Amino acid sequence: MEKLTILGCGSALPASGRHPTGQILEHNGKFLLIDCGEGTQSRMRENKISFDKISHIFISHLHGDHYFGLPGLISTMNLLGRTRDLHLFGPAGLIRILELQFELGKTFLSFSLKFTPVEKEEDILSLRGLKVQSIELNHRLKCFGFIFKEEKKTRRINGPVAKSVGVPHFFMDQLRLGEDYVDKDGNVIQNSVLTLEPKKSHTYAFCSDNRIQADFCNKVKGVSVLYHEATFLHQELKKAKKTFHSTAKEAALLAQEIKPDLLILGHYSARYRSVLPLLEEAKGIYKQTSAATYKDIYDFSKI
Amino acid sequence: MEKLTILGCGSALPASGRHPTGQILEHNGKFLLIDCGEGTQSRMRENKISFDKISHIFISHLHGDHYFGLPGLISTMNLLGRTRDLHLFGPAGLIRILELQFELGKTFLSFSLKFTPVEKEEDILSLRGLKVQSIELNHRLKCFGFIFKEEKKTRRINGPVAKSVGVPHFFMDQLRLGEDYVDKDGNVIQNSVLTLEPKKSHTYAFCSDNRIQADFCNKVKGVSVLYHEATFLHQELKKAKKTFHSTAKEAALLAQEIKPDLLILGHYSARYRSVLPLLEEAKGIYKQTSAATYKDIYDFSKI
Repeated sequence: MEKLTILGCGSALPASGRHPTGQILEHNGKFLLIDCGEGTQSRMRENKISFDKISHIFISHLHGDHYFGLPGLISTMNLLGRTRDLHLFGPAGLIRILELQFELGKTFLSFSLKFTPVEKEEDILSLRGLKVQSIELNHRLKCFGFIFKEEKKTRRINGPVAKSVGVPHFFMDQLRLGEDYVDKDGNVIQNSVLTLEPKKSHTYAFCSDNRIQADFCNKVKGVSVLYHEATFLHQELKKAKKTFHSTAKEAALLAQEIKPDLLILGHYSARYRSVLPLLEEAKGIYKQTSAATYKDIYDFSKI
Repeated sequence: MEKLTILGCGSALPASGRHPTGQILEHNGKFLLIDCGEGTQSRMRENKISFDKISHIFISHLHGDHYFGLPGLISTMNLLGRTRDLHLFGPAGLIRILELQFELGKTFLSFSLKFTPVEKEEDILSLRGLKVQSIELNHRLKCFGFIFKEEKKTRRINGPVAKSVGVPHFFMDQLRLGEDYVDKDGNVIQNSVLTLEPKKSHTYAFCSDNRIQADFCNKVKGVSVLYHEATFLHQELKKAKKTFHSTAKEAALLAQEIKPDLLILGHYSARYRSVLPLLEEAKGIYKQTSAATYKDIYDFSKI
């Protein structure tokens, strides 16, 4: 995973400059869209993200602020003459809505929309060294989060050293896998001399709408970057419980337990004009916290 | 009718600063929304139009750029605790889509959504001196335009004169209806002395997506303000025919036939970065033409 772009960080009610949930995760040349609130296609244009590049879309649940932008995005892809398959993961009902809209709008897609219903916790995708897994969240409506886990990366060749020793080209993959090199005179050159440590493999968890329960930490254990909703300040705990959301403090306490390199907050209630109080509340508990705002880009190589 | 606010003037493909179709027509304290493309609720906020004020919504057809903003707008009205009835007019399939979304999202409306299917040409509403009528347009998909016709307005009291003559308060309504006044000495004071001409009664026609046919002028005869789509320049006539749209020239030729006080163009193809060529093409034929742009407000008292 290279980077995560925030297309929306608000919740259901519109709030200036926030926009509903939408994120782009880039991995090995693939662009994955996670949730797609109303206006996501406009946000993509503003961020110069090509519609055609999106190969996979993940929808957490059927509250409008997480998917009302999807029909418009798919229509636009169609009008632009897309031919590449589009892979869509989400609640079973999602395809019923889309198919009804296509039927009534007499829309015939120029590309194949490959839908996978997400109805339990399982591995749902394996893509260029990335595994995607669904985890059930605790919300008013059946809702799934997604864990994106990179495979362990191989060691990196130390170019100048490998060249000076004369390692032949065909042996490079073995070097990356950790083998020592034996030259033609029988000298063993240790792998650690010829290679550098692999780049960090990240695991990103996306938890859109979730009332954190005691055992939830088990689902996100080992995650290096945790996006978790923080709809309310903790003083609104009663409201958070009633609406099956979490507070910034609760998100931070979860992070304290699983210790990710970074906790990213989002899905702020429109009542908060500034996200600073939410960020401060969380940072008081877990220092490595960031409050997502529109257009933020998180570079995984720097986390 | 007091004014018409343009919330979107683009067509199906997103184009910077245009937004898909959406218009607010204000009449006697009522706010009517005509079409509701994706993002209309954000456009309303930008234009400081209260969601709660919208009493009636008219949807022309089920192409996404004319209704994909509706589910989000209704959800927001609901989250804000609306209790006033909302009247919705549109294709029969529209309510099927909304009901499926509500069902799957477990959404229970806090207000009554009163839906009237629009499936033929008829009078669909009478509201505070305004009659609304549906007219069938010629498009790839069943599509209706709407004609908003103000009743003939009454004469206006000439305050200073009426006062000097001593016309009593209870007689004012009769004055407005054109009666002469007879004072207590039996002198007849002619109505024309005591009143001014009524304000102009407007008829506004909204023609969202329409390939103009020869006899279409009969449907919009007598209209004083004509909004008509002008998706293409006339050099793209072939494309206009194929997609059941009209060119700016064709919209202007229609106006030349029915002679409205104002022709308003909209629904421009995203291929045109500037609307000027479209406006010029139409103005060359019909001078009283305006090209709608986002945030434009048309004041009917000045037309």
